[in-house]
Parts: sequence; C-alpha cells; structure tokens
Amino acid sequence: MSEKASIGVTGLAVMGRNLARNLARHGYRVAVHNRTPQRTRDLVDRFGSEGEFVPAYSAEAFVAALSRPRQIVVMVKAGAATDAVIDEFAELLEPGDVLVDAGNAHFADTRRREAALRERGLHFVGTGVSGGEEGALHGPSIMPGGSAESYRTLGPLLEDIAAKVDGTACCAHIGPDGSGHFVKMVHNGIEYSDMQLIAESFDLLRGALGYEPAQIAEVFRTWNTGRLDSYLIEITAEVLAHTDAETGRPFVDVVADQAEQKGTGRWTVQTGLDLGIPISGIAEATFARSLSGHAVLRAAARDLAGPPRTPLSGSSAQRFADDVEQALYASKVVAYAQGFGQIRAASEEYGWNIDLGSVAAIWRGGCIIRAKFLDDIRAAFAADPAQPTLLTSGEFRKALEEAQDAWRSVVSTAVRLGIPTPGLSTALAYYDGVRAPRLPAALVQAQRDYFGAHTYRRVDKEGTFHTEWAEPSRPERRVDQP
Amino acid sequence: MSEKASIGVTGLAVMGRNLARNLARHGYRVAVHNRTPQRTRDLVDRFGSEGEFVPAYSAEAFVAALSRPRQIVVMVKAGAATDAVIDEFAELLEPGDVLVDAGNAHFADTRRREAALRERGLHFVGTGVSGGEEGALHGPSIMPGGSAESYRTLGPLLEDIAAKVDGTACCAHIGPDGSGHFVKMVHNGIEYSDMQLIAESFDLLRGALGYEPAQIAEVFRTWNTGRLDSYLIEITAEVLAHTDAETGRPFVDVVADQAEQKGTGRWTVQTGLDLGIPISGIAEATFARSLSGHAVLRAAARDLAGPPRTPLSGSSAQRFADDVEQALYASKVVAYAQGFGQIRAASEEYGWNIDLGSVAAIWRGGCIIRAKFLDDIRAAFAADPAQPTLLTSGEFRKALEEAQDAWRSVVSTAVRLGIPTPGLSTALAYYDGVRAPRLPAALVQAQRDYFGAHTYRRVDKEGTFHTEWAEPSRPERRVDQP
Repeated sequence: MSEKASIGVTGLAVMGRNLARNLARHGYRVAVHNRTPQRTRDLVDRFGSEGEFVPAYSAEAFVAALSRPRQIVVMVKAGAATDAVIDEFAELLEPGDVLVDAGNAHFADTRRREAALRERGLHFVGTGVSGGEEGALHGPSIMPGGSAESYRTLGPLLEDIAAKVDGTACCAHIGPDGSGHFVKMVHNGIEYSDMQLIAESFDLLRGALGYEPAQIAEVFRTWNTGRLDSYLIEITAEVLAHTDAETGRPFVDVVADQAEQKGTGRWTVQTGLDLGIPISGIAEATFARSLSGHAVLRAAARDLAGPPRTPLSGSSAQRFADDVEQALYASKVVAYAQGFGQIRAASEEYGWNIDLGSVAAIWRGGCIIRAKFLDDIRAAFAADPAQPTLLTSGEFRKALEEAQDAWRSVVSTAVRLGIPTPGLSTALAYYDGVRAPRLPAALVQAQRDYFGAHTYRRVDKEGTFHTEWAEPSRPERRVDQP
Repeated sequence: MSEKASIGVTGLAVMGRNLARNLARHGYRVAVHNRTPQRTRDLVDRFGSEGEFVPAYSAEAFVAALSRPRQIVVMVKAGAATDAVIDEFAELLEPGDVLVDAGNAHFADTRRREAALRERGLHFVGTGVSGGEEGALHGPSIMPGGSAESYRTLGPLLEDIAAKVDGTACCAHIGPDGSGHFVKMVHNGIEYSDMQLIAESFDLLRGALGYEPAQIAEVFRTWNTGRLDSYLIEITAEVLAHTDAETGRPFVDVVADQAEQKGTGRWTVQTGLDLGIPISGIAEATFARSLSGHAVLRAAARDLAGPPRTPLSGSSAQRFADDVEQALYASKVVAYAQGFGQIRAASEEYGWNIDLGSVAAIWRGGCIIRAKFLDDIRAAFAADPAQPTLLTSGEFRKALEEAQDAWRSVVSTAVRLGIPTPGLSTALAYYDGVRAPRLPAALVQAQRDYFGAHTYRRVDKEGTFHTEWAEPSRPERRVDQP
C-alpha cells in the first residue's frame, strides 16, 4: 500500500481548502500546500479529522507526496499568480502528470498554458468550478477541459466530489484545452442574465402592481414550485422576505442599488462578439450592472421626464403577475438559447466537440444557475443534438408560443409605465428577430454599399453586386467572378 | 526654394491615392510611394496634372524626397502590414520626423506603436479618417491623435484637406497616442447604431403601416428637412426610392437581408465593456447585424409563433409616422450620449483630455454620421463641457420630454406587432434606467451577497456589509474597517 496522496491541492484560501476537504471526505488521501505555510497548518489543525491530509511545506515535498501520475489542483488568483504557480510546478513534474487550474481563468489563457505544458508532456486541465465556497465543500458543478487522457485518471475523483442530480455527477469532460473554462465563463454570463431577468420581474411587480417585497417573495415562492424552480428564484424569495433588523424596512430597500461585477459577464459578451453570436441578454445584464454604478450620471438624469406611473388594478393586475412569470420564463429560454449558441460556436471554432446536452446536465446541480429547467434543456439536446437553436425544440417552442402574448403585454406595460426592462425587451426583440422572414438588415447592407462600396448579395440570384450610386441611372454591376 | 515634398503618402490603394491627390490639389508637393511601383507610376500618369507629385520607387528615395521634419502618411491594411511599414520607415527617419497611420488601427495598437516610436524620438500619429474614398479626395473628417508637437506641423495640412462646415475644418487634434483612433472607432460604433435605428424605423413604417419603400423614401425625405437632417437619412431616402432595373421591384427588396461588418462596431462594444460604459445601442446594432447573417438559425426559427400583424389604420396610422420620427430622434440622442460617454471614460482612463465639443464639431462634415444634430451636440458641450450626459443638456432634455410619449407608443406597438426593434427598445430602457430613482440592482447585489458573500453597501450608512444568510436570524456584519 502506497502512503502517497492520490491528489494534491495548492492554494488553500477558502475555495482551495474546501475542495481539499471535499476530496478528503470522499476518502482520498490529499496532499495540501500553500505558499505561506500557516494556511496549510491551519487546515490540518481545524479539519484534519475529516480525512487523510498530507501537509507539505515546500513545492518539492508536495510533489514528492503524490502518487504517479501526479495530480495537482491549483486554486490561486487568476492571472500572474496562476502563471507563477504553473511555472514552479512544471519544473518539478514529469511527463504524464496532471496540473489542474480550478480558478476562473480566461479560456484564452488556458489555451496558451495547455499548449505550453503539452510540449513538455504535461496535462494541463483548465476546469470550471461553480457553486462558491459551499459548493466546493459539499458538491460543486465541475467543468474540466483538457486531454481525454487526463480525464481518465482525474475524472473519477472529480465526479466523486461533484454535486449529484438523480444519481448523476455534475461533472463531465467538456473537451480539449480551454473548453472547460469557456463553458464556465458562459455559465457565469447566463447567471448575469438570469439575475437581471429576475430583478426586472421584481421591479415590475413592484412598479406596476405596487406590491411590497414580502408579497413579491410569495409570488417567487409560488413560481419556484413550477417550471421556474431554481436556486436563484429560491434565494430571491428569501432575500425579498428578509426584513432589515435595524430599520424594520424590507432588506432589499436598504441595500444600495449598485450591482458589482467581477468580469466574467464582460468576458462572455466580448467573446460572443468575437464569435459573431448575438448574446444580447448577457450584454444587457452586464450593461445594467454598469449603469447602476454610475452614480454621477444617475444623479444628473434623475429628473428626466417619465410617464405617469399608475399601478395596474383589478383584473389586469391579477393577470399581470402571471404574465410576468410567462415573460420571465420566455426570456430565460432566450438567454439560454443564446448562451448555448455561443458554446456551440466556440466548439466549432476551436474544434472542441462539446456535447451541449452534457453541459446542461452538469449544470443541473451544484452551480448558481442550477434549475429544473436545465433538465429540459438536457432532454432537448439529447433528442436533437444538432438543432440550431433551443427556441425551436418541441417543448420550448410550445412554451414560447403560449407565452408570447403575455410577454408582449409585460414588455409593453413596462415601456408604458417607464420601468426599465432591458433584459426582457432584448429577449423579445431577439425572438422576433430570429423568426422575421425579412429583416431590415437589407437596408443596412444597401447603405453600406452606398457609402462604402461594400457590395451586397441579392435574393434572386447568386453573386456579389455593387450599385454605382453616383451615376443617375444607378447601374448594378456584378463584382465577383460569376 | 526647396524642391523637397512637404508630405509623403505611402500605400496608394484608393484611400491613399485619394488623400495624396487631395493634398496635391491643395497645393502641397506630395511624395508618393507604394510597395509595388506600378501603383506609383499609375497615380502620376493618371492624376499628375492635379498638382505636384514626387514619385519615389524605394523607401530610401521616398524619405530623401521629404523636407524636414519629414511627414509620412501610411495608408496600408491595419495589422501586420502597418507594423512592417512602420518598422521599415522607423529605420530611415530621424528624431522629430512624423509617421502618420491613417488606417483603421485598433487604438491599443496605436498606443503600443506610439510608445515604441517615441523612444526613438519619432512622432507617431494615429489618425481616424472618415468619409470613405470620396471623402478622402474631397474632404474627410480627420481625427489625429499624437503629440501636440506633431500637430503643429501636420495640423495645418490636415485642416486644409478636411471637410469644412461653416468655414471650420473638420479636423482637430484629439489628444495623445491612441486617442485619434479611439474616437474614430466610436464614430463607427455610433454609425452602426444610427444605421440600425434607421433600419428599424423603416421596418416599422412598412410593418405597422403597410407603406411601400417609395412611400417611406418620401417620409425620410421629409425628416431630412428637420432635426434628423443627415447624410444617412439622405442616402436612406435614395436607397428606398431606387427601383431594381432587372425586376422592377423596390431595390431594398431584392437585397439579401444579411448585413455585414468589418469589426469596428465590435471593438467599440468590447472597449465599452472594459471601460464599464453601458453602450447598449451600439451593442444591439452589432448583434442585429450578426443575427441577420445566421441563415441556418433564421431558417429554423422562421415558423416560431408571432402575433397577428394587423396594420394600423385611420388616425393612429397618421400619427404613427410622426411618432416614429420622435422615437428615432430620441433613440439617436441616447446612442450619441452613450458614445460620447465612452469617449469621456477613455479620455479619463488614458489621460487624453479630449474636448468632446471639438469631436462633435469635426463630425459635422466629411464623415458618415455627419448631421445637423452634431452641431447641437457641439453647442451642448460648449455650454457645459462637464455635463455627465447629453441627455440632460437643455435642448436634448426638452426634446426627450416631448418625444417620450411617442417613443413609448412606437416601442409598444413594435412589441405588440412582433416587429423587432432592439435598438429603439434598448435606447428607451437606457433612458428609463438612468432616470430611475431606484434600480433593481439592489436585488442583484443582495443575490450576490447571498450566494457568493460579495457584500453590499447600504442606503442609510457608510460601510460594506455582509449578511450571514445561513443563520436563521440572518445577522448583518460590517466587513470593512469602520
């Protein structure tokens, strides 16, 4: 029997510590290491009884403590710190060993690192880990990229410590190199969108119906028993039901209305733009957070004219809350359709061959966007992996058809009452955009031909054309080779 | 009297050739050079009578033909070609000489190049040039960045060849290093937004009123006599009035409805995200172009359910066209407010000290977004350079107040009829967002505190707080140092 550890964790701030504890609790012998040794000692002192930890107080001792192939989970700050740790361990490891970056790296950095380490015979696994501190300890959703070979040894451990839904681990091999971190990035982008749509729904129930937060908490609790059943809806109800002890006011009313962000929403949108995928839902959610933080702008704009805001009443009020549920659900379908579209586009661009159904499956538990809904997405991709968009898969198509009247009514009410709903609005515009038989993009392309000779194609024949707009008869010339 | 040329142009494709001709027509002796000598010969053969050209058939001869300080305009493809030309000439130039990149470089590349050449004592001027081929010849809008010293010798030449509005040249020193290319990038982003808003307005007049393109051309012609008077509205009317010779159908109907893009819209949005500026109008315009090109997605989604589309009639139809003008104008104000906000943010970030009124002034002529409207923006910034947003400056505030009912009615009608108006919708959502006394961002930040311990601030006291959501009493703790 080897006394060696089957896996090591370096970087023992709370996320790394909790992953190490989770591994130890599942019976793995875990080597633990931290740049400052006190954290290593502290972990063993406080949690040593939870399993078998092998504390190591130098990189060399840490590596020596691991069985072959060595598997090291790096959980340090993304960026230069990650590069420094990788450089240090790459020197000490041998071909076939596996280095796992479980931080929130940009997928392009992961691609670069993986390529560099592959040349040295090392497996570099960039893995998304979602679920925060609690998830890391009790079962996160895990999205590992990297070589198939690395997953053969690493996968079983990760699946053991991942969240489980219906007995299935919320962990699967995503694909090569940066695919794991890419999928995690889009997860976070979708999370932004989900949160924004929920926030707008809350704002509508309040602004259009005059409901108090506690009443709205009840509405969300009801929604959470249906198709919107999800972690984010659940915690929204809890937040809205909470009363501030100090003031006796609804808690949400004492919180400053400025939402912060750490950058993965921004990355998702920037990457979507590079891939040419319209992910307007995530973009609007990201912009809404930025806007909320522009205090000087908001102070200056506060007295711009708005419409009279008369709350709805009577039968239209009764119907409105149900309509908001429909609008929220439909917009959520759009946000996920856009996000999965972005993953598919990246998979094609980088040759990752990602199984979208599997991504939906491992998001069903452990992560922030975990939801009943994701099982429907899993089923939709299982039924037809090649479908161009979620919007048209059987169940979603039907739900959108049923929801669209209410969706239109809600957005229209928001517009009339002056309640900003950028997320719900852009989702509906996307829905109407993709189904439009003709888009006014034809006019845009004609304008481009007019001022920049950018050419156009025609609906009735092949070829690329340019109109000589400066000539009175405006002759059209074919400018490609027929 | 020196026989030397006062300026040189290298890269004689149509843009470079036309800039050289424009300079020669203004009495400057212009050295001309191209990697393949045939283009140089061709320019002199065809256009030699327009002014004094000094053809040069090697980089050395080209540099030798220039008076000191040498001024060289580089007009080659952005990217590696620009770097190659810069490297070649940097070797041949002497301290105090000026190298001008008039291509569409990314401002970050311009910053890098300017810093490298500055170390060698050379002035590097990244300049935006807008107006296409015709503008380059007859008077473009010119946006030069770079050192103030470089502008002292270069500025007078550029101002001579620039477009003029009310006797003022559409050229001004923007600021140091990448500021010229940055401003040109945002110009193009705003152009995307303008074009999208016009396209949506067309689509609404058609979809909601059943107007034919020729009728809509008349509507645009009328609008072009008022506050919307602009180059893009003018050419839209011309495009819409044009009948396809081959089919006898409205030209816009035979153009494929897929709008292309060359990347500056995308850059603008990506940069806006980095700066934390919500530029949703440009984002939606960029996404709308991408969406239009997704043929497989659109084919699959074409039969998604939509509402019945009954055209408006009677008095509501009569009012609708006027309402669309109001919505278009108000949305345009938002798009420009966002774009100028982005320029201001970059100016602060990079220490550029950009005069926003001056930017508006030089966009009044020569460039694609030239418009009467830009003189109003110039005036607004002249009256109050520090105003946080254009939306609240006197005239615009009043116009928005008058427009908002119509704007809401138009967006609401679009939503009801299923006509996608992402640009008009997001502009209105932004307007309602910045003026909102409370945003549901408070709920978003509370959710972030719940699942990620990201903390929050309170409306009623200083400090940073975290609620222990897992404890039944949900105690709040102050987590910063008081």
